Amino acid sequence: MKPYIEMTKDELEQEISALRREYKKYQAMDLHLDMSRGKPCKEQLDISMGMMDALNSEADLTCEDGTDCRNYGVLTGIDEAKVLIGDMMENNPDNIIIYGNSSLNVMYDTIARAYTHGIMGNTPWCKLDKVKFLCPVPGYDRHFGITGYFGIEMIPVPMSPEGPDMDMVEKLVAEDEAIKGIWCVPKYSNPQGYSYSDDTVRRFARLTPSAKDFRIFWDNAYCIHHLYDDKQDYLLEILRACEEAGNPDMVYKFCSTSKVTFPGSGLAALGSSKRNLDYIKSVITIQTIGPDKLNQLRHVRYFKDINGMKNHMKKHAAILRPKFELVQKRLTEELGGLGIGEWSNPVGGYFVSFNTLGGCAKTVVGMCKDAGVTMTGAGATYPYKKDPQDSNIRIAPTFPPIDELAKALDVFVLCVKLASVQKMLEEDVTIAEQS
Amino acid sequence: MKPYIEMTKDELEQEISALRREYKKYQAMDLHLDMSRGKPCKEQLDISMGMMDALNSEADLTCEDGTDCRNYGVLTGIDEAKVLIGDMMENNPDNIIIYGNSSLNVMYDTIARAYTHGIMGNTPWCKLDKVKFLCPVPGYDRHFGITGYFGIEMIPVPMSPEGPDMDMVEKLVAEDEAIKGIWCVPKYSNPQGYSYSDDTVRRFARLTPSAKDFRIFWDNAYCIHHLYDDKQDYLLEILRACEEAGNPDMVYKFCSTSKVTFPGSGLAALGSSKRNLDYIKSVITIQTIGPDKLNQLRHVRYFKDINGMKNHMKKHAAILRPKFELVQKRLTEELGGLGIGEWSNPVGGYFVSFNTLGGCAKTVVGMCKDAGVTMTGAGATYPYKKDPQDSNIRIAPTFPPIDELAKALDVFVLCVKLASVQKMLEEDVTIAEQS
Repeated sequence: MKPYIEMTKDELEQEISALRREYKKYQAMDLHLDMSRGKPCKEQLDISMGMMDALNSEADLTCEDGTDCRNYGVLTGIDEAKVLIGDMMENNPDNIIIYGNSSLNVMYDTIARAYTHGIMGNTPWCKLDKVKFLCPVPGYDRHFGITGYFGIEMIPVPMSPEGPDMDMVEKLVAEDEAIKGIWCVPKYSNPQGYSYSDDTVRRFARLTPSAKDFRIFWDNAYCIHHLYDDKQDYLLEILRACEEAGNPDMVYKFCSTSKVTFPGSGLAALGSSKRNLDYIKSVITIQTIGPDKLNQLRHVRYFKDINGMKNHMKKHAAILRPKFELVQKRLTEELGGLGIGEWSNPVGGYFVSFNTLGGCAKTVVGMCKDAGVTMTGAGATYPYKKDPQDSNIRIAPTFPPIDELAKALDVFVLCVKLASVQKMLEEDVTIAEQS
Repeated sequence: MKPYIEMTKDELEQEISALRREYKKYQAMDLHLDMSRGKPCKEQLDISMGMMDALNSEADLTCEDGTDCRNYGVLTGIDEAKVLIGDMMENNPDNIIIYGNSSLNVMYDTIARAYTHGIMGNTPWCKLDKVKFLCPVPGYDRHFGITGYFGIEMIPVPMSPEGPDMDMVEKLVAEDEAIKGIWCVPKYSNPQGYSYSDDTVRRFARLTPSAKDFRIFWDNAYCIHHLYDDKQDYLLEILRACEEAGNPDMVYKFCSTSKVTFPGSGLAALGSSKRNLDYIKSVITIQTIGPDKLNQLRHVRYFKDINGMKNHMKKHAAILRPKFELVQKRLTEELGGLGIGEWSNPVGGYFVSFNTLGGCAKTVVGMCKDAGVTMTGAGATYPYKKDPQDSNIRIAPTFPPIDELAKALDVFVLCVKLASVQKMLEEDVTIAEQS
C-alpha cells in the first residue's frame, strides 16, 4: 500500500471511509480483549504448578544452616535462596536481601525510607525543599507512580536502543544536588525491550552525582526473560561496574521471580553494596521479623539451582515467542511502509513499544477501547501520564491467548490507521498538498 | 519460707550465701536456654504441617469469584480469606485488607504512611514539630521500636488488669493535639496477658481526641489464642463500639495468623472503617500489585472456616497449657510469699509479666544470662527501653521444650532471689532493722 503520507486528500478520504466501515464491524463484535498489562498467561502459570508440590507435609522444612523455616527469624533470607537469586541477578549472595513477594514494594520501601530517614546519614528527603528523579522515557508507569506519590519531581530523559541519553544523565546529576535517583529497567526495558549497552552501563557506574545520596534504581525485572535461545541481550553487571569505578554504593538492584514462577507469590530481592545493605537491615529489623521463608525454600527446592530456573524460562519463552512474533508480523503486514508508526522488536521482556504519529496515541487507545480492546493508557509510559508527543503506546502481548491477541492486534492496527488518517485530514498536511 | 522482707540481716546473709552456691552450680552447667521471645515451639509448628498439603499441583487454584490466584491482581485479598480472617478478628469481611505475612509490617506501614502523607487529608506527621503516642506499659517492644524510629514521643500509660489507665488516656488525648495514637494489645496483652474490660473498650470508643487524625492502634495479636476451653477472656469488638459511639474512623485493628499457622508464613490483616480502608487502598495500590493470594488460598483450604481455625487453636493450647502452668507452679513454689516478686497469670497469649522489687530487673536478667538463660532484655517492655522502676521482666515460656523451660525457670527464680537479697542487703532495709 502507498504510504499515507504520500496520499492525496481524496485518497485519504477514501481510505478513512473504508477504515470506518471496518471499525464499525469490530465494534459490532462486542469484543473484550486486553493488551494492557504485563501479565503472564494461563499456560505460563501452568508450567510452574510443580512449585505446589515442592514442599509437602512430609518434607523437612529445615534449611541448610539448620534453621526451621516454619518459625520466626532470618531477616534477610535463607542462604540457599540468596544463592539462587544471586545467580539470577548475577550478584554475590552476600550482597542480597530477600524480601516478600513484590519488588515494587521493595522499591516503594526504598524510596519511603529515603523520604522519612534519608540514606545513610543524609538529610531525609521529606526535609528537603525539592527532590528530583530522572525518568528515562518511555518507561514503567508504576515507577513513576511511586516517585509521583512522594512529590518527587520527575525529569524525563530520552531513551535510545542503547539506553538513556547518558550525556543528559551525566550533566544533570553532576549539576543538580536535588537529583537523588534515576529509574532504570536496564534489560528488555519496559516498554521498548531495549537493553543498555556496555558503554551505557559503564557511564552509569562512572557518574559523578552532586548528591551524595544519589542512587541508581536498577529494576532488573527481566534479567532472565529471554524469548530466544540464540538471540539474547547481554547486560553488564552494574554492581561490579560501580565497584570498579569507585562508586560501590551508588546502585540498588531490584529483581523478582514474579514472571518466573507465580506473580504475587514469588520472591523479590534487593542487591547492593555491603554498606547500603547494612543500613537497610538496620531499618527493616524495625519493620518486620522477616519474609516468608517457606516460600523461599519452595523456590529453592523446586528449581534446585540457576540451571533449573533457566530451563524453566525456556518454557516461558516457548509460550511467549509466538505472541511476540505475531505482533511483529501483524504490525509489519498492516503498518509497514505506511509511515504512520514505529515499533520496537525486542528479544526478551514483556512489551513492545509503539509510536504513532504525534498527537495520535490517546485517540488510538480510545478507539481501541470503544471497540472492546483495552490497551495501557496513552501517556502511562511518561511521568505524570503526560506524553508530550502523545505518541507512545505500550503493547503487552503476553496475557491474551494467541487467537485473542490476533484479534486485538487487528483492532489495534485498524485504530492506528484510522487515527492517523483522521489526524492527517484534520491537519490537512499531506505530501501531495505540501508540495 | 519466711518472707525475705521479714528476715534479719544475718538471715539474709545466710540466704545469699546459699543462693550464691546454688547459682554457681547452674553456671557450671553450661546451659543454653531461651525464654526471650514469643515464638511457637516445634510441636506447635508440627500441628500445622497439613498446611503444606492444602494446595498441590492437582489443585484448582481459582478462588470463589473466579480469580486465578496464581496471577497478579486482587489488591486487598481474596473474598474467602476476608471471611476467614474476618471471623477470626470479629470483623465484617468488607472492612478488611489482607496483607502479606507480617502484621508488624502493616503497623510500620500505617505509621510510615501517616508520617509521609498524613491520615485522610491531615498534615503529614513529618511536617509537624511534635507527634506523640500513648504507650500502655509494660507493653510490646516492637511497637515502641516503630514509634521510636519515627521520632514519635512515647508517653507511658500504666496498665491494670482492666487495661490502660483510661482516666489518663481520656485526659491526655483530649488535651494534646500532638497525641496521634495509642498502642494497644487489647486481649492477652503483651506481656501481662490482661484483656481489656468492656468498660475500657467503651471508654476507648468514646474518646474525644483533640487530634482529628488520632487513631487507636489495636493490635489484636492474640485474639483466638486461649489456653483453656473453659476459661477464656472475652473482648468487646472495638470497631463496632467505635461506630456506636460515633467515632467510626478512630481505630485500626491488626491481626495475623503468625501464631496460628507458621510465623513468617501467615496472613496479616487490617480491619477498619470503610473510609479508612478506602484511603489506605488508594496508597497501597502505588506500593504493591497485591499480596500472596496462594498463601491466602492455602489458609482457606486448610481451615475451611473459623471452626477449623478454632479447633486448630485447641491443639496449640494443649501444647502451651502445661508450659504456662509450669511457670505458675514454679513461681508460686519458689517465690510465693517471699515478697520479692509479683506476676500475672493469664489464660491466653504468649507471655507472663513478672515484676521484681524495684531496681532488680536488669540484675536478674543479667544474672540469668550469665547462667546461660536468655530473657527478654529488662526495660524492653517500656518505651526507650527505660523501665523507671527497673522491675518488669517478660517471661516467654512457649518456645523451649518443657524440660528446658523447667530448668530455665529454676535459674530465673534463683536469680530473682539472689538479686532481691543482694538489693535488700545493699539498701540495708529489712523489716527487722527498720523496726
